[in-house]
Amino acid sequence: MKTIIRRAVKEDCARLLELIRELAEYEKAPQEVTVTMEHFIESGFGKQPVWWAFVAEVDGRVEGFAMYYIRYSTWKGQRMYLEDLLVTEKMRGQGLGKMLFDQLIVEAKEKNFNGMVWQVLEWNEPAINFYKKYKADFDPEWINCSIPV
Amino acid sequence: MKTIIRRAVKEDCARLLELIRELAEYEKAPQEVTVTMEHFIESGFGKQPVWWAFVAEVDGRVEGFAMYYIRYSTWKGQRMYLEDLLVTEKMRGQGLGKMLFDQLIVEAKEKNFNGMVWQVLEWNEPAINFYKKYKADFDPEWINCSIPV
Repeated sequence: MKTIIRRAVKEDCARLLELIRELAEYEKAPQEVTVTMEHFIESGFGKQPVWWAFVAEVDGRVEGFAMYYIRYSTWKGQRMYLEDLLVTEKMRGQGLGKMLFDQLIVEAKEKNFNGMVWQVLEWNEPAINFYKKYKADFDPEWINCSIPV
Repeated sequence: MKTIIRRAVKEDCARLLELIRELAEYEKAPQEVTVTMEHFIESGFGKQPVWWAFVAEVDGRVEGFAMYYIRYSTWKGQRMYLEDLLVTEKMRGQGLGKMLFDQLIVEAKEKNFNGMVWQVLEWNEPAINFYKKYKADFDPEWINCSIPV
Protein backbone atom coordinates (compact mmCIF):
# COMPACT_ATOMS: atom_id res chain seq x y z
CA MET A 1 0.00 0.00 0.00
CA LYS A 2 1.50 3.28 -1.08
CA THR A 3 0.23 6.42 0.60
CA ILE A 4 1.16 9.94 -0.38
CA ILE A 5 0.05 13.32 0.88
CA ARG A 6 -0.01 15.97 -1.80
CA ARG A 7 -1.60 19.30 -2.56
CA ALA A 8 -5.06 19.01 -4.13
CA VAL A 9 -5.32 19.95 -7.80
CA LYS A 10 -8.27 20.95 -9.91
CA GLU A 11 -8.70 17.40 -11.17
CA ASP A 12 -9.37 16.20 -7.62
CA CYS A 13 -12.51 18.29 -7.27
CA ALA A 14 -14.96 15.64 -8.49
CA ARG A 15 -13.61 13.10 -6.01
CA LEU A 16 -13.52 15.66 -3.19
CA LEU A 17 -17.14 16.58 -3.72
CA GLU A 18 -18.00 12.88 -3.75
CA LEU A 19 -16.33 12.45 -0.35
CA ILE A 20 -18.05 15.57 1.00
CA ARG A 21 -21.43 14.16 -0.09
CA GLU A 22 -20.67 10.76 1.42
CA LEU A 23 -19.91 12.37 4.75
CA ALA A 24 -23.10 14.41 4.61
CA GLU A 25 -25.11 11.24 4.04
CA TYR A 26 -23.37 9.57 6.95
CA GLU A 27 -24.32 12.58 9.04
CA LYS A 28 -27.88 12.27 7.72
CA ALA A 29 -27.82 15.67 6.09
CA PRO A 30 -27.29 15.06 2.34
CA GLN A 31 -29.73 17.88 1.48
CA GLU A 32 -27.39 20.34 3.18
CA VAL A 33 -24.77 20.02 0.44
CA THR A 34 -25.91 22.66 -2.00
CA VAL A 35 -22.56 23.76 -3.40
CA THR A 36 -22.19 23.11 -7.14
CA MET A 37 -19.14 21.58 -8.81
CA GLU A 38 -18.61 24.77 -10.80
CA HIS A 39 -18.62 26.99 -7.71
CA PHE A 40 -16.45 24.51 -5.85
CA ILE A 41 -13.77 24.53 -8.56
CA GLU A 42 -13.92 28.29 -9.02
CA SER A 43 -13.50 28.83 -5.27
CA GLY A 44 -10.43 26.65 -5.10
CA PHE A 45 -8.73 27.25 -8.42
CA GLY A 46 -10.23 30.41 -9.90
CA LYS A 47 -8.81 33.90 -10.02
CA GLN A 48 -9.14 34.47 -6.30
CA PRO A 49 -8.90 31.15 -4.49
CA VAL A 50 -10.52 31.01 -1.05
CA TRP A 51 -9.73 27.42 -0.12
CA TRP A 52 -6.70 25.14 -0.26
CA ALA A 53 -6.46 21.42 0.37
CA PHE A 54 -4.23 18.41 0.73
CA VAL A 55 -5.26 14.91 -0.27
CA ALA A 56 -4.22 11.50 1.02
CA GLU A 57 -3.81 9.21 -1.96
CA VAL A 58 -3.64 5.46 -1.38
CA ASP A 59 -2.54 3.41 -4.39
CA GLY A 60 -3.62 6.22 -6.69
CA ARG A 61 -7.03 6.80 -5.12
CA VAL A 62 -7.93 9.79 -2.93
CA GLU A 63 -9.06 8.38 0.41
CA GLY A 64 -9.00 11.51 2.50
CA PHE A 65 -8.43 15.22 2.43
CA ALA A 66 -7.93 18.28 4.60
CA MET A 67 -9.23 21.64 3.45
CA TYR A 68 -8.56 25.05 4.91
CA TYR A 69 -9.26 28.70 4.30
CA ILE A 70 -7.65 31.80 5.76
CA ARG A 71 -9.34 33.20 8.78
CA TYR A 72 -8.61 36.78 9.68
CA SER A 73 -8.51 37.47 13.39
CA THR A 74 -8.40 41.11 14.45
CA TRP A 75 -6.32 39.98 17.41
CA LYS A 76 -4.00 37.44 15.81
CA GLY A 77 -3.93 38.24 12.12
CA GLN A 78 -4.09 35.46 9.52
CA ARG A 79 -4.80 32.00 10.86
CA MET A 80 -5.40 28.68 9.15
CA TYR A 81 -9.01 27.62 9.52
CA LEU A 82 -9.38 23.89 9.05
CA GLU A 83 -12.76 23.48 7.42
CA ASP A 84 -12.77 19.74 6.81
CA LEU A 85 -10.59 16.78 7.70
CA LEU A 86 -11.98 13.58 6.28
CA VAL A 87 -10.81 10.00 5.78
CA THR A 88 -13.00 7.39 4.09
CA GLU A 89 -14.52 4.87 6.49
CA LYS A 90 -12.56 1.88 5.23
CA MET A 91 -9.24 3.68 5.54
CA ARG A 92 -9.64 4.95 9.09
CA GLY A 93 -7.25 3.96 11.85
CA GLN A 94 -4.27 3.83 9.51
CA GLY A 95 -2.78 7.21 10.23
CA LEU A 96 -4.06 9.11 7.20
CA GLY A 97 -5.70 11.72 9.42
CA LYS A 98 -2.47 12.28 11.27
CA MET A 99 -0.49 12.57 8.05
CA LEU A 100 -2.91 15.18 6.75
CA PHE A 101 -2.96 17.10 10.01
CA ASP A 102 0.84 17.13 10.21
CA GLN A 103 0.98 18.45 6.66
CA LEU A 104 -1.37 21.28 7.64
CA ILE A 105 0.98 22.26 10.45
CA VAL A 106 3.90 22.39 8.01
CA GLU A 107 1.83 24.55 5.67
CA ALA A 108 0.71 26.87 8.47
CA LYS A 109 4.33 27.40 9.47
CA GLU A 110 5.45 28.02 5.90
CA LYS A 111 2.70 30.58 5.33
CA ASN A 112 3.35 32.29 8.66
CA PHE A 113 -0.18 31.77 9.87
CA ASN A 114 -0.76 32.57 13.50
CA GLY A 115 -1.87 29.10 14.50
CA MET A 116 -4.55 26.74 13.30
CA VAL A 117 -8.18 26.89 14.33
CA TRP A 118 -11.16 24.63 13.73
CA GLN A 119 -14.32 23.34 15.36
CA VAL A 120 -15.38 19.95 16.63
CA LEU A 121 -18.84 18.69 17.57
CA GLU A 122 -19.03 18.38 21.34
CA TRP A 123 -20.13 14.72 21.14
CA ASN A 124 -17.45 13.66 18.65
CA GLU A 125 -15.19 11.90 21.12
CA PRO A 126 -12.83 10.16 18.67
CA ALA A 127 -12.09 13.50 17.02
CA ILE A 128 -11.64 15.27 20.37
CA ASN A 129 -9.19 12.57 21.48
CA PHE A 130 -7.30 12.93 18.22
CA TYR A 131 -6.96 16.68 18.74
CA LYS A 132 -5.91 16.23 22.36
CA LYS A 133 -2.77 14.53 21.10
CA TYR A 134 -1.86 17.86 19.52
CA LYS A 135 -2.50 19.60 22.84
CA ALA A 136 -5.26 21.62 21.24
CA ASP A 137 -6.99 24.31 23.25
CA PHE A 138 -10.76 23.71 23.51
CA ASP A 139 -13.09 26.67 24.00
CA PRO A 140 -16.79 25.78 24.34
CA GLU A 141 -17.95 29.30 25.26
CA TRP A 142 -18.92 30.33 21.75
CA ILE A 143 -22.18 29.77 19.92
CA ASN A 144 -22.28 29.54 16.13
CA CYS A 145 -24.79 31.92 14.58
CA SER A 146 -26.03 32.17 11.02
CA ILE A 147 -28.63 33.78 8.83
CA PRO A 148 -29.46 33.24 5.18
CA VAL A 149 -29.29 36.38 3.06
CA MET B 1 -25.19 64.41 14.28
CA LYS B 2 -24.39 63.02 10.88
CA THR B 3 -23.84 59.29 10.61
CA ILE B 4 -22.67 57.51 7.50
CA ILE B 5 -21.83 53.89 6.80
CA ARG B 6 -19.08 53.45 4.25
CA ARG B 7 -16.51 50.93 3.14
CA ALA B 8 -13.29 51.00 5.18
CA VAL B 9 -10.23 52.37 3.41
CA LYS B 10 -6.56 51.99 4.13
CA GLU B 11 -6.47 55.27 6.02
CA ASP B 12 -8.94 53.87 8.57
CA CYS B 13 -6.55 51.15 9.72
CA ALA B 14 -4.94 53.12 12.56
CA ARG B 15 -8.34 53.98 14.03
CA LEU B 16 -9.63 50.42 13.54
CA LEU B 17 -6.68 48.94 15.38
CA GLU B 18 -7.24 51.49 18.13
CA LEU B 19 -10.84 50.32 18.52
CA ILE B 20 -9.76 46.68 18.44
CA ARG B 21 -7.30 47.34 21.25
CA GLU B 22 -9.87 49.26 23.27
CA LEU B 23 -12.24 46.31 23.06
CA ALA B 24 -9.51 43.90 24.10
CA GLU B 25 -8.80 46.02 27.16
CA TYR B 26 -12.47 46.11 28.03
CA GLU B 27 -12.46 42.31 27.73
CA LYS B 28 -9.39 42.23 29.96
CA ALA B 29 -7.20 40.67 27.29
CA PRO B 30 -5.05 43.48 25.84
CA GLN B 31 -2.05 41.14 25.60
CA GLU B 32 -3.99 39.00 23.13
CA VAL B 33 -3.79 41.64 20.39
CA THR B 34 -0.53 40.74 18.73
CA VAL B 35 -1.31 41.75 15.15
CA THR B 36 0.91 44.55 13.84
CA MET B 37 -0.28 47.58 11.92
CA GLU B 38 1.76 46.52 8.91
CA HIS B 39 0.25 43.02 8.79
CA PHE B 40 -3.19 44.47 9.42
CA ILE B 41 -2.96 46.84 6.47
CA GLU B 42 -1.39 44.24 4.18
CA SER B 43 -4.16 41.76 5.01
CA GLY B 44 -6.89 44.23 4.17
CA PHE B 45 -5.42 46.25 1.33
CA GLY B 46 -2.46 44.28 -0.03
CA LYS B 47 -2.22 42.17 -3.15
CA GLN B 48 -4.51 39.46 -1.81
CA PRO B 49 -6.94 40.97 0.68
CA VAL B 50 -8.41 38.56 3.23
CA TRP B 51 -10.65 40.95 5.13
CA TRP B 52 -13.16 43.63 4.25
CA ALA B 53 -14.88 46.13 6.50
CA PHE B 54 -17.46 48.87 6.81
CA VAL B 55 -17.17 51.75 9.21
CA ALA B 56 -19.78 53.89 10.96
CA GLU B 57 -18.62 57.49 10.87
CA VAL B 58 -20.28 60.03 13.16
CA ASP B 59 -19.45 63.66 12.44
CA GLY B 60 -16.28 62.58 10.69
CA ARG B 61 -15.08 60.18 13.37
CA VAL B 62 -15.15 56.37 13.08
CA GLU B 63 -17.25 55.13 16.01
CA GLY B 64 -17.81 51.55 14.93
CA PHE B 65 -16.99 48.98 12.33
CA ALA B 66 -17.92 45.56 11.00
CA MET B 67 -15.25 43.34 9.53
CA TYR B 68 -15.69 40.12 7.61
CA TYR B 69 -13.71 37.52 5.74
CA ILE B 70 -14.84 34.82 3.33
CA ARG B 71 -15.49 31.48 4.89
CA TYR B 72 -15.53 28.48 2.61
CA SER B 73 -18.05 25.83 3.56
CA THR B 74 -17.78 22.49 1.75
CA TRP B 75 -21.55 22.24 2.06
CA LYS B 76 -22.64 25.78 1.27
CA GLY B 77 -19.79 27.37 -0.65
CA GLN B 78 -18.69 30.93 0.09
CA ARG B 79 -20.22 32.53 3.16
CA MET B 80 -19.62 35.85 4.86
CA TYR B 81 -17.92 35.35 8.19
CA LEU B 82 -18.48 38.31 10.48
CA GLU B 83 -15.31 38.55 12.50
CA ASP B 84 -16.00 41.70 14.46
CA LEU B 85 -18.91 44.07 14.98
CA LEU B 86 -17.99 46.90 17.31
CA VAL B 87 -19.46 50.23 18.38
CA THR B 88 -17.66 52.52 20.83
CA GLU B 89 -19.19 52.56 24.29
CA LYS B 90 -20.42 56.14 24.17
CA MET B 91 -22.20 55.57 20.86
CA ARG B 92 -24.08 52.43 21.77
CA GLY B 93 -27.86 52.27 21.70
CA GLN B 94 -28.13 54.66 18.76
CA GLY B 95 -28.55 52.14 16.00
CA LEU B 96 -25.00 52.10 14.63
CA GLY B 97 -24.74 48.34 15.11
CA LYS B 98 -27.95 47.80 13.19
CA MET B 99 -26.81 50.07 10.37
CA LEU B 100 -23.56 48.14 10.07
CA PHE B 101 -25.28 44.77 10.24
CA ASP B 102 -27.81 45.78 7.60
CA GLN B 103 -24.96 46.92 5.36
CA LEU B 104 -23.33 43.50 5.74
CA ILE B 105 -26.53 41.83 4.59
CA VAL B 106 -26.60 44.05 1.49
CA GLU B 107 -22.96 43.19 0.79
CA ALA B 108 -23.55 39.45 1.30
CA LYS B 109 -26.40 39.56 -1.20
CA GLU B 110 -24.38 41.52 -3.74
CA LYS B 111 -21.45 39.11 -3.50
CA ASN B 112 -23.73 36.09 -3.69
CA PHE B 113 -22.51 34.70 -0.41
CA ASN B 114 -24.49 31.78 0.94
CA GLY B 115 -25.54 33.45 4.16
CA MET B 116 -23.71 35.12 6.98
CA VAL B 117 -22.10 33.32 9.88
CA TRP B 118 -20.48 34.46 13.11
CA GLN B 119 -20.01 33.51 16.75
CA VAL B 120 -21.26 34.99 19.98
CA LEU B 121 -20.13 34.35 23.55
CA GLU B 122 -22.79 32.31 25.33
CA TRP B 123 -23.07 34.84 28.17
CA ASN B 124 -23.31 37.91 25.92
CA GLU B 125 -27.04 38.44 26.28
CA PRO B 126 -27.31 41.92 24.70
CA ALA B 127 -25.60 40.60 21.57
CA ILE B 128 -27.72 37.45 21.50
CA ASN B 129 -30.88 39.55 21.77
CA PHE B 130 -29.65 41.78 18.95
CA TYR B 131 -29.10 38.75 16.71
CA LYS B 132 -32.49 37.29 17.62
CA LYS B 133 -34.10 40.26 15.89
CA TYR B 134 -32.52 38.96 12.69
CA LYS B 135 -33.97 35.50 13.38
CA ALA B 136 -30.45 34.09 13.55
CA ASP B 137 -29.97 30.38 13.98
CA PHE B 138 -27.97 29.52 17.13
CA ASP B 139 -25.94 26.32 17.23
CA PRO B 140 -24.12 25.66 20.53
CA GLU B 141 -22.97 22.13 19.62
CA TRP B 142 -19.53 23.13 18.38
CA ILE B 143 -16.34 23.64 20.32
CA ASN B 144 -13.64 26.01 19.09
CA CYS B 145 -10.23 24.37 18.86
CA SER B 146 -6.84 25.90 18.24
CA ILE B 147 -3.14 25.18 18.31
CA PRO B 148 -0.17 27.49 17.85
CA VAL B 149 2.16 26.44 15.02
